[in-house]
Amino acid sequence: MPKLVARGITVSLDGYMAAPNQSLTQPFGDDGIKIMGWAFKTKYFKKMFGTEGGSEGLDNEFAVNADANVGATLMGRNMFSPLRGPWENEDWKGWWGDEPVYHHPVIVLTHHARKTFELKGGTSFTFVTEGLEAGVKQAFAAAKGKDVRVGGGANTLRQCIQSGLLDELHLVQSRELLGAGESLFAGLGAALKRYEVFEAKASDEVTHYIIKKKA
Amino acid sequence: MPKLVARGITVSLDGYMAAPNQSLTQPFGDDGIKIMGWAFKTKYFKKMFGTEGGSEGLDNEFAVNADANVGATLMGRNMFSPLRGPWENEDWKGWWGDEPVYHHPVIVLTHHARKTFELKGGTSFTFVTEGLEAGVKQAFAAAKGKDVRVGGGANTLRQCIQSGLLDELHLVQSRELLGAGESLFAGLGAALKRYEVFEAKASDEVTHYIIKKKA
Repeated sequence: MPKLVARGITVSLDGYMAAPNQSLTQPFGDDGIKIMGWAFKTKYFKKMFGTEGGSEGLDNEFAVNADANVGATLMGRNMFSPLRGPWENEDWKGWWGDEPVYHHPVIVLTHHARKTFELKGGTSFTFVTEGLEAGVKQAFAAAKGKDVRVGGGANTLRQCIQSGLLDELHLVQSRELLGAGESLFAGLGAALKRYEVFEAKASDEVTHYIIKKKA
Repeated sequence: MPKLVARGITVSLDGYMAAPNQSLTQPFGDDGIKIMGWAFKTKYFKKMFGTEGGSEGLDNEFAVNADANVGATLMGRNMFSPLRGPWENEDWKGWWGDEPVYHHPVIVLTHHARKTFELKGGTSFTFVTEGLEAGVKQAFAAAKGKDVRVGGGANTLRQCIQSGLLDELHLVQSRELLGAGESLFAGLGAALKRYEVFEAKASDEVTHYIIKKKA
């Protein structure tokens, strides 16, 4: 059975996915990017950004595995674009250049309809306005038997947990303290109790948790 | 220099020190006691409760170390007693029986004055009504050059972080998800950014973090 998964979701030790004051130039808020330090040190990320070297241990293994068997990505509109409200035109094609990193269909949850478009390397963007369940359904159809990965942001991920649609979460807990910001867990309540930690492994940088929905 | 330390402070993976509905019979709230599972498995805890066996690895080492070089304990009134408001009499002597586990002076922060009393084995309880700083000062005087350990509860510990008086926190992150409860970190804001993770070690049960105030 293909699964709805979220991977490489990184939080500070105090549970925040981003610090306050997120903006176009600071998507992780004031100084929040430091929680991603573990990823930037891996060989996999360095290669993605076109540089050599990088770590090859546990963190790199998890980074590589995050993309394994993924047939489609589901994301919220705020992850696709810094623009809000109705699309004034169709110029914005995402953050990821002419040939995005995905190489598979991306389903964007939005309140504002827009036509599907394709970019180089097999990445297409399809906009779904009928809500989370419709988006998940369409993403599974597009994934053709593979898993669907929830890209983010926090709001979309929280909806996937709240609804119980998420099957698996690879959580990365950084050792940075942010003090404030966008909490992954706050207010999830009983919805979170349907999940349990299946595996935990610590590297020198972070602790990785595989969290699964209870059978 | 003697330090103000908190040790063995255990939170769920989603950051709660206790689940909702704390009560006299359920001090960790509904099903919240499971976050302490790691401690109950250690040789140190088993011995404390008069039973044999128990684990001798990393978790046990941290449990043993939690009591090292401690000359006095500081706690909030709600940790000392389930009673609220002014003392109707002086019958309540704490949860810990005739010979409490402390074997040193305990300073209780309270709004309601009460006389110091002593129990067997070197444990005394002194009640301070002049607030956190006065309590800390008195605890250091009582500790005679050793460290002062903050016993809890959450409110007292959060005050110690907020004020910057806490020097060191040994945080234990369990792999249980509670969904709701008493958050250790929520709302600490900039106060928490004065601290940093100094050491992190994972066992099969939990991840231990030593968090220190920045120099």
